[in-house]
Amino acid sequence: MTPEISIQRRVQWMDTDAAGIWHHSVVTRWTEEAEAELHRQLGIIDQTFGATPRVRTEFEFGRALGFDDVVQVNLSVEALGETSVTYRIEVLKGANRVASGKLVAVFIDRQTGEKRPWTPGLRQALAPRGQDS
Amino acid sequence: MTPEISIQRRVQWMDTDAAGIWHHSVVTRWTEEAEAELHRQLGIIDQTFGATPRVRTEFEFGRALGFDDVVQVNLSVEALGETSVTYRIEVLKGANRVASGKLVAVFIDRQTGEKRPWTPGLRQALAPRGQDS
Amino acid sequence: MTPEISIQRRVQWMDTDAAGIWHHSVVTRWTEEAEAELHRQLGIIDQTFGATPRVRTEFEFGRALGFDDVVQVNLSVEALGETSVTYRIEVLKGANRVASGKLVAVFIDRQTGEKRPWTPGLRQALAPRGQDS
Amino acid sequence: MTPEISIQRRVQWMDTDAAGIWHHSVVTRWTEEAEAELHRQLGIIDQTFGATPRVRTEFEFGRALGFDDVVQVNLSVEALGETSVTYRIEVLKGANRVASGKLVAVFIDRQTGEKRPWTPGLRQALAPRGQDS
Repeated sequence: MTPEISIQRRVQWMDTDAAGIWHHSVVTRWTEEAEAELHRQLGIIDQTFGATPRVRTEFEFGRALGFDDVVQVNLSVEALGETSVTYRIEVLKGANRVASGKLVAVFIDRQTGEKRPWTPGLRQALAPRGQDS
Repeated sequence: MTPEISIQRRVQWMDTDAAGIWHHSVVTRWTEEAEAELHRQLGIIDQTFGATPRVRTEFEFGRALGFDDVVQVNLSVEALGETSVTYRIEVLKGANRVASGKLVAVFIDRQTGEKRPWTPGLRQALAPRGQDS
Repeated sequence: MTPEISIQRRVQWMDTDAAGIWHHSVVTRWTEEAEAELHRQLGIIDQTFGATPRVRTEFEFGRALGFDDVVQVNLSVEALGETSVTYRIEVLKGANRVASGKLVAVFIDRQTGEKRPWTPGLRQALAPRGQDS
Repeated sequence: MTPEISIQRRVQWMDTDAAGIWHHSVVTRWTEEAEAELHRQLGIIDQTFGATPRVRTEFEFGRALGFDDVVQVNLSVEALGETSVTYRIEVLKGANRVASGKLVAVFIDRQTGEKRPWTPGLRQALAPRGQDS
């Protein structure tokens, strides 16, 4: 099964700016919170956080959000490389897309900071359906 | 002349995470601070901030930064559309590239929230060299 | 009944710093999220947020939190003045106190920015038990 | 001489909220940036950051700030205890006080996390005038 997660979040007052709506940077926070929840459920959070620096992010923004709006944040593994993982992110308010994007991270050795191949356990946990783990 | 700016920033303690290095989201803050400084120098900050929602961001990350590291954040207008602007961003620590990316924003009417063409004054201020303002 | 709320929060990766633990400023976020949840449940959130600037905060910190730790954030109205409200905040990890504090806000007219007395409806909603609303 | 520092900061767009003004939590960021600048100038930043957890903060807020406002952030050592330091903070916009407060931190052993007395070098650097270092 493709590793994926959906979490619900609310736009907090601190997340708004003087335009009266959310600040777009909130999507970064929500993405990482979804990623953490996925890794927690997969039982790998202790092995991955702090060992998977981001190498690329991209986001497209549709409609704006207001204070106290509730959204679904959907995150799924799109591809798993030798040492990298690509997540697909989607933020929905009801049926409307608020933002979507991708996040690419690489697995490193915490001691050396050098890239390393996923361990078999991490590979099995993170491999999307249809991709040979 | 192409509208561009270079600001110096320092990695603050709040900008670090438990991996002992900066959190990648800091690039969003620095990008917007550079954009504000550019608009301030161009004399357009009162017309643009709160009226230019982001429609796309993308960042690639190279080397990590540590607490108290000093960087140059370079931001320039890459293209000016009928209602949009594309910035090019580069974060350098000395000669090394830390991060690079793009930010696309659109100009809206603050009352209606609808996209609108740049005013002649904003167009003149933001048009990159070689592009007919 | 004294207006009070208890919400559960988790230390996110962005909430940590290079000491390997949470950054103390997270308590400000959690406090405001608890306040918003209380006002939502009281049905007054549309009248209060953006109309209740903070005039005083104080926090004491006990034990540190690590990434992914779960806490209870308890917020209650300690006192209601003519134009002000004082909240008591407590952050607990299990039975251990992580942080405690107070937040004082005042009610203002959104147009003029001037302090104003609570409306009867807000007074009734926010008055603590034992205090005449 | 009393260890003290004054830094200039600007309210950034991300620092505002939907009330159209700054979010009060920005004072925490500015306080820590001033503290870092002071420790850098004193030559002790490598010994203190990550080894001086906060045990108490308190802030009082006067007038609000708007986007792009410029302030002076003044921070000075008010008292130095056996293992603690108390800073006095003041944020001024021109002659007007925006916020003021105190921050108390303690010195710990990075390995054990236990409180420890300031080293002679740190004591000499941080002792306020009139207090025997």
